[in-house]
Amino acid sequence: MAGSTFGKIFKITTWGESHGNALGVVIDGCPAGLELSEKDIQPFLDRRKPGQSEVTTQRKESDEVEILSGIFEGKTTGTPISMIIKNEDQNSNAYDELKDVYRPGHADITYDAKYGFRDHRGGGRSSGRETVARVCAGAVASKILAQLDIKVNAFTKSIGSVVIPEGEIDFSVNNIVNMPNEEYANKAIELINEKRSEKDSVGGTIECIVDGCPAGLGEPVFDKLDANLAKAVMSIGSVKGVEIGSGFDASTSTGSLNNQEGAGGTLGGISNGKQIKLTAAIKPTPSIAQEQKTTDKNGKDVSIEIHGRHDPVIAPRACVVVESMVAITLVDALLENMNSRIDGIINFYK
Amino acid sequence: MAGSTFGKIFKITTWGESHGNALGVVIDGCPAGLELSEKDIQPFLDRRKPGQSEVTTQRKESDEVEILSGIFEGKTTGTPISMIIKNEDQNSNAYDELKDVYRPGHADITYDAKYGFRDHRGGGRSSGRETVARVCAGAVASKILAQLDIKVNAFTKSIGSVVIPEGEIDFSVNNIVNMPNEEYANKAIELINEKRSEKDSVGGTIECIVDGCPAGLGEPVFDKLDANLAKAVMSIGSVKGVEIGSGFDASTSTGSLNNQEGAGGTLGGISNGKQIKLTAAIKPTPSIAQEQKTTDKNGKDVSIEIHGRHDPVIAPRACVVVESMVAITLVDALLENMNSRIDGIINFYK
Amino acid sequence: MAGSTFGKIFKITTWGESHGNALGVVIDGCPAGLELSEKDIQPFLDRRKPGQSEVTTQRKESDEVEILSGIFEGKTTGTPISMIIKNEDQNSNAYDELKDVYRPGHADITYDAKYGFRDHRGGGRSSGRETVARVCAGAVASKILAQLDIKVNAFTKSIGSVVIPEGEIDFSVNNIVNMPNEEYANKAIELINEKRSEKDSVGGTIECIVDGCPAGLGEPVFDKLDANLAKAVMSIGSVKGVEIGSGFDASTSTGSLNNQEGAGGTLGGISNGKQIKLTAAIKPTPSIAQEQKTTDKNGKDVSIEIHGRHDPVIAPRACVVVESMVAITLVDALLENMNSRIDGIINFYK
Amino acid sequence: MAGSTFGKIFKITTWGESHGNALGVVIDGCPAGLELSEKDIQPFLDRRKPGQSEVTTQRKESDEVEILSGIFEGKTTGTPISMIIKNEDQNSNAYDELKDVYRPGHADITYDAKYGFRDHRGGGRSSGRETVARVCAGAVASKILAQLDIKVNAFTKSIGSVVIPEGEIDFSVNNIVNMPNEEYANKAIELINEKRSEKDSVGGTIECIVDGCPAGLGEPVFDKLDANLAKAVMSIGSVKGVEIGSGFDASTSTGSLNNQEGAGGTLGGISNGKQIKLTAAIKPTPSIAQEQKTTDKNGKDVSIEIHGRHDPVIAPRACVVVESMVAITLVDALLENMNSRIDGIINFYK
Repeated sequence: MAGSTFGKIFKITTWGESHGNALGVVIDGCPAGLELSEKDIQPFLDRRKPGQSEVTTQRKESDEVEILSGIFEGKTTGTPISMIIKNEDQNSNAYDELKDVYRPGHADITYDAKYGFRDHRGGGRSSGRETVARVCAGAVASKILAQLDIKVNAFTKSIGSVVIPEGEIDFSVNNIVNMPNEEYANKAIELINEKRSEKDSVGGTIECIVDGCPAGLGEPVFDKLDANLAKAVMSIGSVKGVEIGSGFDASTSTGSLNNQEGAGGTLGGISNGKQIKLTAAIKPTPSIAQEQKTTDKNGKDVSIEIHGRHDPVIAPRACVVVESMVAITLVDALLENMNSRIDGIINFYK
Repeated sequence: MAGSTFGKIFKITTWGESHGNALGVVIDGCPAGLELSEKDIQPFLDRRKPGQSEVTTQRKESDEVEILSGIFEGKTTGTPISMIIKNEDQNSNAYDELKDVYRPGHADITYDAKYGFRDHRGGGRSSGRETVARVCAGAVASKILAQLDIKVNAFTKSIGSVVIPEGEIDFSVNNIVNMPNEEYANKAIELINEKRSEKDSVGGTIECIVDGCPAGLGEPVFDKLDANLAKAVMSIGSVKGVEIGSGFDASTSTGSLNNQEGAGGTLGGISNGKQIKLTAAIKPTPSIAQEQKTTDKNGKDVSIEIHGRHDPVIAPRACVVVESMVAITLVDALLENMNSRIDGIINFYK
Repeated sequence: MAGSTFGKIFKITTWGESHGNALGVVIDGCPAGLELSEKDIQPFLDRRKPGQSEVTTQRKESDEVEILSGIFEGKTTGTPISMIIKNEDQNSNAYDELKDVYRPGHADITYDAKYGFRDHRGGGRSSGRETVARVCAGAVASKILAQLDIKVNAFTKSIGSVVIPEGEIDFSVNNIVNMPNEEYANKAIELINEKRSEKDSVGGTIECIVDGCPAGLGEPVFDKLDANLAKAVMSIGSVKGVEIGSGFDASTSTGSLNNQEGAGGTLGGISNGKQIKLTAAIKPTPSIAQEQKTTDKNGKDVSIEIHGRHDPVIAPRACVVVESMVAITLVDALLENMNSRIDGIINFYK
Repeated sequence: MAGSTFGKIFKITTWGESHGNALGVVIDGCPAGLELSEKDIQPFLDRRKPGQSEVTTQRKESDEVEILSGIFEGKTTGTPISMIIKNEDQNSNAYDELKDVYRPGHADITYDAKYGFRDHRGGGRSSGRETVARVCAGAVASKILAQLDIKVNAFTKSIGSVVIPEGEIDFSVNNIVNMPNEEYANKAIELINEKRSEKDSVGGTIECIVDGCPAGLGEPVFDKLDANLAKAVMSIGSVKGVEIGSGFDASTSTGSLNNQEGAGGTLGGISNGKQIKLTAAIKPTPSIAQEQKTTDKNGKDVSIEIHGRHDPVIAPRACVVVESMVAITLVDALLENMNSRIDGIINFYK
């Protein structure tokens, strides 16, 4: 049951449903003395905010965060930081007809199986809207990392079959698909619009790179940095696969070649001080307007068309979510690593 | 630091180094009343045992497990089960020349960075030999799953570019690469021998399927079943990528197609009662006999040839490790799910 | 840092400061299907509400709780329950003069030592006001226990030297000191008024009894039921001692006698199905109006008189806090115990 | 079920039964670089070793510890430290007649209730012998504390009604009851012999003081240092009560007096840099030779005389167990406190 807490030392606990009053997060374990205000959080929220462009859902949410605790005179106090985002444009009625129907590719059927009933409004807790709370925590984690000159950057690497070729990434460009290459971004937007016109959706991949990460982060065996990163990113609803460094290409490579290529910034699951590279596979939006066959709660075969307001592609808005989960995981590893050596402990208490 | 414990309720804690006296695991949280003896564990250990065939390391280890606690009159008592495996054929001297050299693709450099020094004998704690303890716990988890008719099965899906085509899997065949297709197994063995003759190694993929898993396992948001599976499998040293269901193929698919294909047995991170499918990318053995460039602990460039006794391919022996980690994760999810509903709790205590 | 979460399965995370905007709690791990609304929580809050009588602080707080998530159509959904209580009568100015002074018996000096600075307004996070969030969670836990006919009851056993004699407890009586004996309650009120007239305060003890608890709750060795109860209750700021059953009297007793007397409902740390009895020592309110010597943040000796609005005695209002912590601990133990036996697990999944 | 792990960062997991092959502990989270060998552990084990004097059980155990992992070239490596103690003088037959009888004051009845059956030999996991593993971990924790000049010292404060008066403690004296006052020690020994001659046993109290503890240890709200100490000490089977500082005396004191007296080294649950004082109530040995009434597993009333080899008093041998649990709790708090401030983190990674 208790699945809404992430992190061992920098612990975040999120709450809220797609169509409830509000969503939020409590961060317990944020170090004291960090300058922090809503101004640090809002830019992250704006990056995932719906209704931003032609390729995102038209649901309108201002997604304004309010910090309720843990800050005094502009600084974190070391006690829990509670943040809340109110829901505005809920329009639950759109979901009434789906009350007893299981949407394909959604958690409707599994929540009913697990809990005996569910909040059907927009998927309730299982909605992608849940990630708004992760992003609030990610903004705080990123600010901590910034104090140590660690930079996390997630972007759309591919949409459908449109992939930015190696070496053609240009972070100076800026577009609605978060794809750092103008030419491929335009091809991607074309593809998205085509799929939407077909009442369909398309998948993609997100790459996340971390620069400036010190060596030594991650713990042996089970809490390897890459293991925790994999969990962090796979816990995002739309993610179906995660790679570190060469990832699946390693499976067709040889030792002599693979040893030369980057391991992706970790060796034995511990950071080696080089750039960390992670790739996530993002599935196509399961909510599509075309007719689909499914079942209802009585097991009867039915067909539905989903007329909510849905993104034709998830990857662009999910970049900041991946970035947030990576940042949170790194902060946790940074804090834990401070306990690794007796001499470090003695110096600390001197 | 505390990275050697896995699981929330069915908790395993492993210990031991490649060339220490012994390795072992303590399982805390195994239900009482399960018939258990060394006979249940040994077959799993035998599947990962070194020195079994031409394609595995020639290190000779009988890998006999001894259960030291938690069993009374042939049954688990509900208290910690401590299991130990003694190291025999250690031959540490082979590593003396590597004392100050960082082997490419190994944790040597990161353990020095994290801890200030390291047990250099065969990689110490970071050695793949650590997985012997995971397999002991996996055998116990598998026996619990068997009580519920849940079957976990991991096999080699590909070695290098030799991939078993969809639909051509035949579990009746049995071979030294754990590849359920005789023709492709032979191609794979050829490839392995070719690479070894070049003093090189090769990667592969492992597929793990779970049959009979009830719906409802996994927790919302962060402790999704697939997120915990991803961590479990990515924590294996040689794994560089993990996919659930369609995995990276979903990134080039459309909603209409992807909704039809198997989600891999989970929806919203909770099992749906169908077959669970997971794929792991296994890197090529980093220890190869051909000359490689690297650095020593003083940062000096050096070149080495590694003349230990190493597997030319990791995937075949890693299947049982993947299977074990999946089984352990499922047992933990099964136990946690018992607490999901108030009516289930009331019935339990009636 | 991460000290604001309690429980392993029924996990509560509290947040908020004495003079912040609000306080709250997130419960993660509450079973689905429990009928729950603010009406279930408010009576518990009312029992600890300030400004109720002559013997409590005159701070006025309506302490109205709002549930923000985790409920759908009147029932818990199995997802996090977020509850919030707004602060109203904050009057922080009263604390301005205490900004740099360390109040005797308070956490002012230790928070400064730990975090480098502190929210000085009413003690910030270290204020007893924090317990308002515990009580919200306690109300939910108590409702779960009620489904299993388990009843937790905490009352004032003594105030100063006024102790209810064994066998003279009468739960039918009701008074402002929560002392179930009219005669001793009146003596206690006299004592309290006397101490207040001397600008002083007085301590007391709270006894908590649990009826209807099934046998088998608690885990061997470290997570014994009494160990977790001791932590739960000792974590309340004003508690300086905890006893289970005969407690300190056992230290002057003999085996022959002590074996006969109640062990307090646990044997080997596991409930035996009999009444559980716990006693907590509550210190006198440290904030008193008479002049006291202390130091300021520069280590200078100063003397202060504290003119906030403080209870002359803590025990009466703390009863519901002790009761809440005991209820939360029991629910956690109930849930964990469901995983104790393989036959119970098999039956559950049949 | 998982109750055999203690600590969040410095995590210990113990295993083993009174009459099994062996007992042991795995410490995960011990910092690297600490010089450690069996020589550091053995003196602690010798302090709790049975068969030492007239006032302890005559069971003969050499209690020699062997370290199986986590040490390389005399120093901790930062990976799990596995320690094992073999059982020798088991003499299980003495317990055959108790197979179906529930010994008064023991966990026999509750283990049967929880698990459906039990290892009846000497109480199995619930035996006080379990503490041998805690003491191994305590020795390591104490060595870490010694690096920071923190000293933990537990001693017998009273046996039965024989209490060392305030101010008459003399740590220079040494005796078989660990009572730092020769005159009262002799009175205590007299009392013990008297009770044993009556086939009875007697209780006592243990005081534990910590000197040199820095300010700032402990976390707000639930993980207060005193809350964790209370759990740590109450988890020892024979402990029925725990006090911090003035403890239960605070309940009869006034704010003006209690603010002056020592709070016991913590304020708001966080250490204040002064001496920490904790007192534990130890029950009389429940195993006594005189006839007692009890029930058997069929609920039938029976009477038994327990002719094992039992201590007539527990307190003297339990001192080192209390000391160990306090040391382990302090190390965990020390490590966690390193993460409290952003400036400390920045300095650490500079």
